[in-house]
Amino acid sequence: MIFSNLEFDDGQKEHLRRLCAPDTVYFGDPEHPSVADREAFLAADIAFGGCPPEWIPEAKKLRWMQFASVGVGEYAHLDWKRRSENLVCTNLRGFFAVPVAETAMAGLLSLYRGIDRLVELKPRRTWMKLELRMRLKTLSGANVLLVGYGSLGQRMRNLMIPFGCKVTAYDKFAEGAEWTELAELDTALPDADVICVALPDTPDTRRLFAKERLGLIKQGAVFINVGRGSVVDEDLLVEALSSGRLGGAVLDVTEKEPLPVEHPLWDCPNTVITQHTAGGSSDELDRKSSFFTDNLRRHRAGLPLENVVDWERGF
Amino acid sequence: MIFSNLEFDDGQKEHLRRLCAPDTVYFGDPEHPSVADREAFLAADIAFGGCPPEWIPEAKKLRWMQFASVGVGEYAHLDWKRRSENLVCTNLRGFFAVPVAETAMAGLLSLYRGIDRLVELKPRRTWMKLELRMRLKTLSGANVLLVGYGSLGQRMRNLMIPFGCKVTAYDKFAEGAEWTELAELDTALPDADVICVALPDTPDTRRLFAKERLGLIKQGAVFINVGRGSVVDEDLLVEALSSGRLGGAVLDVTEKEPLPVEHPLWDCPNTVITQHTAGGSSDELDRKSSFFTDNLRRHRAGLPLENVVDWERGF
Repeated sequence: MIFSNLEFDDGQKEHLRRLCAPDTVYFGDPEHPSVADREAFLAADIAFGGCPPEWIPEAKKLRWMQFASVGVGEYAHLDWKRRSENLVCTNLRGFFAVPVAETAMAGLLSLYRGIDRLVELKPRRTWMKLELRMRLKTLSGANVLLVGYGSLGQRMRNLMIPFGCKVTAYDKFAEGAEWTELAELDTALPDADVICVALPDTPDTRRLFAKERLGLIKQGAVFINVGRGSVVDEDLLVEALSSGRLGGAVLDVTEKEPLPVEHPLWDCPNTVITQHTAGGSSDELDRKSSFFTDNLRRHRAGLPLENVVDWERGF
Repeated sequence: MIFSNLEFDDGQKEHLRRLCAPDTVYFGDPEHPSVADREAFLAADIAFGGCPPEWIPEAKKLRWMQFASVGVGEYAHLDWKRRSENLVCTNLRGFFAVPVAETAMAGLLSLYRGIDRLVELKPRRTWMKLELRMRLKTLSGANVLLVGYGSLGQRMRNLMIPFGCKVTAYDKFAEGAEWTELAELDTALPDADVICVALPDTPDTRRLFAKERLGLIKQGAVFINVGRGSVVDEDLLVEALSSGRLGGAVLDVTEKEPLPVEHPLWDCPNTVITQHTAGGSSDELDRKSSFFTDNLRRHRAGLPLENVVDWERGF
């Protein structure tokens, strides 16, 4: 039996049921898991989506868990060594590179080309052509530093080169990154006009951007975070944005999501808060279902699954 | 003597004076030309910027006019055949391709990735992650039709290909355009998800997008205009946006600028009005001065000038 807790509508449920037959599919509540949902999860041999982390150690029948995200940090504390003999986990790494890179570019270009200001001016019917023009920047010639060089970082580079950006990348593991050591990252940071962070949440990445490293960033630079909120000290980020030391930010992720109503980030100038929508698209659930059912075919045929999570690296 | 009416600050004026020596430079008012400005213009042999069109027939000493824009439609009605023996005009075609293409991409990506909505939500501190995600589109796979394939259209193609767009271009003259006949444009239009118009204002282009041709555009497509407002019937554009037949628009240009306070475009949904800022950047005036003084060197050496206006084609 397959357990899923994604936000499918009735048509999508029916479609997934057909694709998964002869396996049956149980659909749990995406937001508020019920007692019945938990029982179904414990009876399932396959899960597609997520679950409260504490359910996993009890799910003795579960053989394969297909997460519907790239980040799996909320499950990282579990004792995966014990479970890994009989439970394989897969995630969606690479899946979101296209939409997330587009949102990162959209937010960055909005700041550089004043779209955020122009959108605010529209309901006020206020023409500010000359004042605005003199303040706009062009990406052409900008120094971009990608922090994290997985499929998303690589796509960012491909999109940015034709704009005339000079792009370098830091990544401890990924091929093609110019910088692999933190000391190199710190040498590159002061030259960057744009810093684009696309890192998973792991013990290595948590608070990577705390006081010292945030202090290396150039006056007026734009900070993009499309990885996980935990990578940056949010209090210091708020301070750098409010004081104008940072020129702006595009934040798809924050430490707390939904971002609390009283959070000071809502008030920061030149800050585009994309509310963890960057991975989204109107065909997102259909594409996720396709990825899952492709992996389901491999699972049934006893073939290696795509995107197996390496719990030592944390993604 | 050189006449200029650009919006220079004192430092920029001093800098231009030095670059132009031994010629003297007279700086007229950019917005409200005075009687003294007119007299200076009539005494100048070189002008850099623009002027009230009716001054030109009287400016007997003028030998070279460097416009500070690409579009010169407001001067097109003058009797250039008579003047062209002793007056050469140059414009800034190509000069704005980089910033304008970035604003076009910024506006388009904002609509596709919901940045316009997210910017509106920020002061209201409203989290709408799931509702928004399901409505976002990706440029990847979008069919883009460039209408006008000068340096700007060509740059747009170079920026869009890495996003995974399928791009074709219409242009009566430019090399590299797939479509050169209006009949071909009309065949291509119904397939386009994005139409990006970058045409000058000429008798050929005026109302190119009127009732019949606007009717060929696909339901939900996005219309970008970074050329001149005269190319489209604005009443019909408002209707198509208000009814939702068009999915959105990015409008850098309108028929009347500044766009009047009572104009219905301010109320159109999914419409990014960039207020003729697309050509702008913080270094814009310095770059214009460089272009002018490079041409000034050619003028003094008796060499052919860059960007001579062809009044038969209108740009």
